[in-house]
Amino acid sequence: MTNREQSDNKFGRKAIQVEEAQARLMNYAGAMEAETVPLEQSLGRYLAESIAAPHPFPAFNRSGMDGYAVVASDTENSRDGGMVWLKVVDNIPCGAVPAGAIIPGTAARIMTGAQVPEGADAVVMLEVTETRDLDGIPHVGVRKPIPSGRNITPLGYELKQGEQVLAAGHKIAAGDIAVLAAFGVHDVPVIRRPRVGVFATGSELLDVKEPLQPGKIRNSNSPMLEALVREAGGEPVMLGAIADELELARSKVHSALETLDLVITTGGVSVGDYDIMGDLVREEAGDMLFNKIAMRPGSVTTAAVRGGKLLLALSGNPGACFVGFQLFARPVIASMQGASESFLPEWTVVLGKDYPKVNNYFRFVRGRLEVRGGSIYAYPAAIDESSVMVTIKDSDCLIIVPPEERGLSAGAKVRAIILP
Amino acid sequence: MTNREQSDNKFGRKAIQVEEAQARLMNYAGAMEAETVPLEQSLGRYLAESIAAPHPFPAFNRSGMDGYAVVASDTENSRDGGMVWLKVVDNIPCGAVPAGAIIPGTAARIMTGAQVPEGADAVVMLEVTETRDLDGIPHVGVRKPIPSGRNITPLGYELKQGEQVLAAGHKIAAGDIAVLAAFGVHDVPVIRRPRVGVFATGSELLDVKEPLQPGKIRNSNSPMLEALVREAGGEPVMLGAIADELELARSKVHSALETLDLVITTGGVSVGDYDIMGDLVREEAGDMLFNKIAMRPGSVTTAAVRGGKLLLALSGNPGACFVGFQLFARPVIASMQGASESFLPEWTVVLGKDYPKVNNYFRFVRGRLEVRGGSIYAYPAAIDESSVMVTIKDSDCLIIVPPEERGLSAGAKVRAIILP
Repeated sequence: MTNREQSDNKFGRKAIQVEEAQARLMNYAGAMEAETVPLEQSLGRYLAESIAAPHPFPAFNRSGMDGYAVVASDTENSRDGGMVWLKVVDNIPCGAVPAGAIIPGTAARIMTGAQVPEGADAVVMLEVTETRDLDGIPHVGVRKPIPSGRNITPLGYELKQGEQVLAAGHKIAAGDIAVLAAFGVHDVPVIRRPRVGVFATGSELLDVKEPLQPGKIRNSNSPMLEALVREAGGEPVMLGAIADELELARSKVHSALETLDLVITTGGVSVGDYDIMGDLVREEAGDMLFNKIAMRPGSVTTAAVRGGKLLLALSGNPGACFVGFQLFARPVIASMQGASESFLPEWTVVLGKDYPKVNNYFRFVRGRLEVRGGSIYAYPAAIDESSVMVTIKDSDCLIIVPPEERGLSAGAKVRAIILP
Repeated sequence: MTNREQSDNKFGRKAIQVEEAQARLMNYAGAMEAETVPLEQSLGRYLAESIAAPHPFPAFNRSGMDGYAVVASDTENSRDGGMVWLKVVDNIPCGAVPAGAIIPGTAARIMTGAQVPEGADAVVMLEVTETRDLDGIPHVGVRKPIPSGRNITPLGYELKQGEQVLAAGHKIAAGDIAVLAAFGVHDVPVIRRPRVGVFATGSELLDVKEPLQPGKIRNSNSPMLEALVREAGGEPVMLGAIADELELARSKVHSALETLDLVITTGGVSVGDYDIMGDLVREEAGDMLFNKIAMRPGSVTTAAVRGGKLLLALSGNPGACFVGFQLFARPVIASMQGASESFLPEWTVVLGKDYPKVNNYFRFVRGRLEVRGGSIYAYPAAIDESSVMVTIKDSDCLIIVPPEERGLSAGAKVRAIILP
């Protein structure tokens, strides 16, 4: 038996497709409980329920101009340069209620955003009017006819009462906060953030604060995952790095899965002797979702379920860890927050330069987007080996290179996952 | 004198171009002081100084495979199916230091990520080897020649000592955190966040928590600006809403500018009688930067300087307030944080449908991007009036429509500002 056979045998690895791995994970990534947060803390959260408009918006006929509210038909006689004079009977600042209705022959001074009085059906902008007193009474002069409805936003123009303002699962952005505020939604129903345990395994790992030692590296994946979990809306709970000890890993995983909502590890999943996460998942085989995916980098990405909660074991290679997070952890974290769109957007883009590497698997290549002349190009990173970290920071997309017998040429249409 | 002449006279309004307005603001938006934050709190912050690699990365020749470190020339004789057997003299897990050098005829068992011993210049992957004892000593069998350098990431491959890791002004993303961690940068020098005062003016404004009243609206711009300031990296300081009273506005602005770094207001800048921010800026004319911009929406956007600090008075119209923030406030807030890229990206995209409206000014139209077949399209919002709020939430770009004598047709190439 070769070492490869021994290794495959030991792990019982059977590669599944990326979509299949995602689907298996999503079975255990249902939305968690709802909670209420103050509007000002709701940015980036996912709505737990749809919001319907409690009243029309605007809630009254609103003036779009500083000027004079008039009966439009009164202005018809101002054709041919003749000026029509209307008696000014009211002055309506923003926030005020009109004193009464406007009848033919009268007008009301009105501000932008103020409530248009009954009877008025147009607002003449201030700049094209003149004012004078006639018999001691202020009048406004209008030089040109104005069509009915002009410069008025009618009640319910933006949203009618009961119309959906925002759908459940929507991620709240700044513009949404404006809309929620306008409707008085000061306590916002959202799904709570999942608490995500993060730890790294590897006897080679130094803490970020430790001086470098021969043969060792600093643990860069944990801080990266902490940032990625936060970016995805999760609440990272940092559990440090442990040496390659199966017992330690087991107790860490088990206690984390008891108290937290999701556990993500990095390292310990390749085919070597010290790959303890692989061992851990293998020995509890009933719970394993997968331990090999037909992709590069990160083919060893492994997942298991315990007590209904997910353990996602990502590669220790920085590039593979990053890609694994974006493909598998981010959608899980979004879905646990009830997101209507859990997956990152995928666009068809133009490959900016040749990608000569031949693949047996789907390859997710770090790249950069560029837009020129209405076309969108993706440029693969100069170095996209899974072990390489520096190109993570320069990437804003993952180019999906399908299994091919020959490489891809510049100009080819490729799919790309757009990073946040 | 017409009311328009009176109004123009009162405000001394002279429209300037958008770029000119931005340039005037940027004169007062220099980077503030640096501070140090723990690495795990540095996401989204801007680097105060460039970071150079304190050591090469990787800091040693790193194995890219689980397998055996060998002298590549030893494997040449394995051609034609003949197997070469090498004496296994070391076992190097991750984080360990090799016991000694590898000499011809020997090999070391080595893990992915471990330090390659002196003398070895290739790593044969575990899966293509066999092991057996010869004379009671473990040996590894290699079936095929391996080229020198294979499966080894040489010292300094990603970054050499002293090379720039990240440049001053760079905004820290998750991938950057990995790199900073790898180099032991646990205290990160960043520019502090500007404290940004936000208040609204308007006697029509209700608090978000108040029930609706006739003629009034809830203050939706303040919570939106709070979210936008936070998104831009600023620290919002919410100063509420005030009625249209010049004295109150003056004292609020002055005390805010004394204690905060920047003040943004919304409302009170159009041409009506109650436009107190306009009055306030006018009466201190020496400090005024501009009070009219050749654009829609938000032509009345006004800015002044007092004690070296900026006051930016945005329109009270929600759409205009949003656009004004993205064009003027966001770059200021980014620049105060030392950002190397203060402005939002601008792409040339394809107009997805006709935009028939004729403009005398540059118009910034809320829109949505769509990517299809390698082309990127922007679709103008169905309603893009400045007073309309609901379409803010559905927009991910601002389409820049230049002054035209006729509208734009679907398929035209247009510039668009990409929203975050």
